[in-house]
Amino acid sequence: MRMYDCIQKKKHGEALRKEEIEFIVNGYTNGTIPDYQMSAFLMAVCFEGMSEEETLHLTMAMAHSGDMLTLSGIEKKTADKHSTGGVGDKTTLIVGPMVASLGVAVAKMSGRGLGHTGGTIDKLESFPGFRVDLAEAEFEKQVQELGIAVMGQTANLAPADKKIYALRDVTATVDQMALIASSIMSKKLAAGADTIVLDVKTGSGAFMKTLEDSIALAQEMVKLGNNAGRSTYAVVSDMNQPLGYAVGNILEVKEAIDALKGKAPADLMESCYVLAAQMLLGTGIVTDFEQGVAAAKQTIADGSALKKLAEMVEAQGGDPKYVYEPERFPVAAYAKEIYPQSEGYLASVQTEEIGMVSLVLGAGRETKESEIDMTAGLIMTAKIGDLLNPAEPMAVLYANDEKKLLDAEKRFQKAIQISKEPVQPLKHIYATVSGEGVVML
Amino acid sequence: MRMYDCIQKKKHGEALRKEEIEFIVNGYTNGTIPDYQMSAFLMAVCFEGMSEEETLHLTMAMAHSGDMLTLSGIEKKTADKHSTGGVGDKTTLIVGPMVASLGVAVAKMSGRGLGHTGGTIDKLESFPGFRVDLAEAEFEKQVQELGIAVMGQTANLAPADKKIYALRDVTATVDQMALIASSIMSKKLAAGADTIVLDVKTGSGAFMKTLEDSIALAQEMVKLGNNAGRSTYAVVSDMNQPLGYAVGNILEVKEAIDALKGKAPADLMESCYVLAAQMLLGTGIVTDFEQGVAAAKQTIADGSALKKLAEMVEAQGGDPKYVYEPERFPVAAYAKEIYPQSEGYLASVQTEEIGMVSLVLGAGRETKESEIDMTAGLIMTAKIGDLLNPAEPMAVLYANDEKKLLDAEKRFQKAIQISKEPVQPLKHIYATVSGEGVVML
Repeated sequence: MRMYDCIQKKKHGEALRKEEIEFIVNGYTNGTIPDYQMSAFLMAVCFEGMSEEETLHLTMAMAHSGDMLTLSGIEKKTADKHSTGGVGDKTTLIVGPMVASLGVAVAKMSGRGLGHTGGTIDKLESFPGFRVDLAEAEFEKQVQELGIAVMGQTANLAPADKKIYALRDVTATVDQMALIASSIMSKKLAAGADTIVLDVKTGSGAFMKTLEDSIALAQEMVKLGNNAGRSTYAVVSDMNQPLGYAVGNILEVKEAIDALKGKAPADLMESCYVLAAQMLLGTGIVTDFEQGVAAAKQTIADGSALKKLAEMVEAQGGDPKYVYEPERFPVAAYAKEIYPQSEGYLASVQTEEIGMVSLVLGAGRETKESEIDMTAGLIMTAKIGDLLNPAEPMAVLYANDEKKLLDAEKRFQKAIQISKEPVQPLKHIYATVSGEGVVML
Repeated sequence: MRMYDCIQKKKHGEALRKEEIEFIVNGYTNGTIPDYQMSAFLMAVCFEGMSEEETLHLTMAMAHSGDMLTLSGIEKKTADKHSTGGVGDKTTLIVGPMVASLGVAVAKMSGRGLGHTGGTIDKLESFPGFRVDLAEAEFEKQVQELGIAVMGQTANLAPADKKIYALRDVTATVDQMALIASSIMSKKLAAGADTIVLDVKTGSGAFMKTLEDSIALAQEMVKLGNNAGRSTYAVVSDMNQPLGYAVGNILEVKEAIDALKGKAPADLMESCYVLAAQMLLGTGIVTDFEQGVAAAKQTIADGSALKKLAEMVEAQGGDPKYVYEPERFPVAAYAKEIYPQSEGYLASVQTEEIGMVSLVLGAGRETKESEIDMTAGLIMTAKIGDLLNPAEPMAVLYANDEKKLLDAEKRFQKAIQISKEPVQPLKHIYATVSGEGVVML
C-alpha cells in the first residue's frame, strides 16, 4: 500500500477501505508517512469529505493508536461528558458531582485551556493540592469507590489524533466535520466510558458558528459513538455569549460551587440539568429525560452534589474546605468595573474575544509554556437582550497586573454591541440529539 | 503575512494577491514555509484552481527564484523549444539545427531522462566527448557564433519550481493545469529566449491523456508566455505511440541524423517541420506558417541542417564524424526481433509502457544514480493502423544483457493490442496554438 495512492483516491472523491485508513493512521503515527503527505491527504478530505463508514474507521484507528482504557475495575455504568469548548464553560465541575451522587460512575479525562477557552484541569488546580496526574489504577479505584474522578489526559491516549490534530492546526484543515467528529470521538472511545454525553457549542464563541453545522456535528458524533457500541447523546447549546457570568479559573470554580448550591445564572443551571439528565438516561439511572432533570435538581436541593465535589477534591489531594468556604480562594489584586458606553440593549458579544480578554488578563496561556494566573478573569453579568444602564457596571475585570486592565477593557468594549432597539434574549439549549434523532427545544 | 491564511484563502476559493504568491514561493524556497503547509496549499489549488493572473504571478515568482538568463550577448532573435515529454521524442536534435541554419539563435537548456521518457542531454552524450555543462558565457558565445547550443539546466534555474515539483510528485498534486503550466513556463522564462515553442504531447504516453486537456494546457502556457513578454507558440502532437521508430539514446540520435537527411518516418518529419515553422514565425524569419514549413524542408534538402548539427557537436567537444558516419556508433551486444502474436491491425500502444521497456533494456535510469546504457532501446516500426503479419517483425529490442530481453519482450507484447478489424491511423499533429487562438489540423 502506498500513501500516494491513498491521497490520489481521496482526491478523486473515492472512499477509502478500512485497511487503507488504518495504514494512513498507523503510518502517520509511527512516522513512516511524512507530514507533507498527510497534510495533502487532509486537505483532500476537506474537499471530498468522508463517508459514515470511513469516519468510523478513522475514529477507531485513532482510538486504537494508543491505550484503550477498559475501566474494568468499575462495577457501575460509567459515563463521560465532553464539551466542544466554550467560554465560561464550567459544567463538568457541576454535572459530574450531580450524576455521581445519583450512582453514575463519572470517569472523566479532561484537557487544559486551549486558545480562547479554559480547561477543566486548569480550573480544578485552583484547589490547593489538587492532583490531576492520577495513575490509571488509582483513577479507576477512585471512580469505583467515590463515583467520580477527573484526571488529565494520559500521554498515550489516542496519540494518532494528537499528531494529526497538531498538523491540521497549522495547515488550515481543522474545520471539516468528519475530521472534527473523529478527533473528539477517538479520545472518548479510548477513555473507556459506556455512556458519552457531548455538549456541542454553537455561536460566536464556538468552533461551529452556525446551528445547522452544530447539529450536524452532534449527529455525526452520536452516530459514531453508537456505532462503536457506546451509548451516546448530545446537547447543542448556546455559545453566543459566555456561559454563566464567570470566565477565568478561580472565578469559574466559585461559580460552579454557587451552581451546586442552586445560586448560579439560569443559562448555566439549565445546561447542567440537561447534560445531567442525558448522563442519567444513558446509564439507565432514569428512564426518561424529565425524570433525569428532576433527579438532577434534587441533588442540588439536598446538597448531595456539593458534598460529592468536596469528596472528589479531597480524594485527589485538594483541600475540601474551599468547597464550603469559597471565600478562602485568593482574589486578584486589581479589579475594574466596566460600564456600558451607551444606554441600550446588549445585542451581541464576540464571545471568542471575551475569552481572549480573560486570557490577556492572565487566565490563559499565551504560549504552551505560559503560567496561568488562577485569580485572573472576568465576571460579565450582562446577557444578550438585557437593557444596559451606563451608570451600572456590566462586567468586572480581574488581574494582578494593573496595566493589563486598560488594554483588556478596550478589547472588552470592542467585543460587545449595544442596540437602541430591544433585542430578544437567546435560548440556552437549542436541541438534544440521541440515536433516535434530533429534538429541537 | 502567514502561510496559514494563504492556505485558508485558497481553500475557500479566493484568489491570492501577487504579494501572497511571492511570499509563498520565496518562503517555500528558502525553507521558512515547511513542506506540510506547502502540500496542503497545493492540494487546495488542485481543487480550487488558480486564475490567469494568479498563474502568471506564480510563474514569474518561480522564474525569479534563481538566475534569470538574459542572453544579452546574442544579437539575433533567440528561440527555445520545449516538449512536455514523450517516448521517442528526438525533435530537438532535428529542429534545433534546422532553424539555426536559417538564422534563429537556438539557446536551449535541456533535461535528462525522467521516468519513461528520455532526455535530450542524455541523447547528445551519445557523441563521444560531447559536453553539456557549458558555462553561461560559453553558452551565449556559442549561440552568438554558431546559432545553436544545447546545455544541461544550470543548478540555479528556477529552484522554486524544482523544490515545488519534487513535493507535488509525492503528494498527488501533479495533475493540475495551472501548476503544470507554471512549472514549465517558469523554467522557459528563466532560460531567457525571446521566442518559446511548446510541443504539448497528448495520448497514452503523454502527461495529458486527452486532447481537450492538452489543448487547454497549450493555451494556458501560450497565454503565460505572451503575458510575460515572450513570443509563444504551441503544437499539440500525438503520443499514443512512440514518435518515429527509435526509442533509446544512440538509436534516437541515429534516427535524428536520418531525419536531417529526410529519411525518417513521416510522423517525426511532420512534427519537426511544424515546430520549426513556429520557431521561424516567432522569431520573424518567416511571416506565415506555410513559408516556415517550406524553409524548414529546404534545410533538409540542401544539407544545411545536418551540417549545423555537426558544427554544434564539434563546438561542444564531440566528434562530428559520427554525424556523417553514424555507423561509427557502438551497437548493443544483443538484438531480438519481436513478432506479432496474431495477424491483425495494430490497434493501440501503451506508450508509457514502451518507454518502460526501453528503460528496463538499459536506456533509462531506474534510480537517479543509475548509469544509462547508450546502446540499449528498441526500434518499433509498426504504427497504429498497420496490418501486422506474424511472420514479419514489428520491433527489435537492443540490450547488452541478454536476460533483459526476455522480460522486455513480455512487457512489449502486453503493451500492444491487435485488432481483427481495420484501425484508422492516427494524426501526427492535432492543433497549433498561438496568441491568436487554436487551429485544429
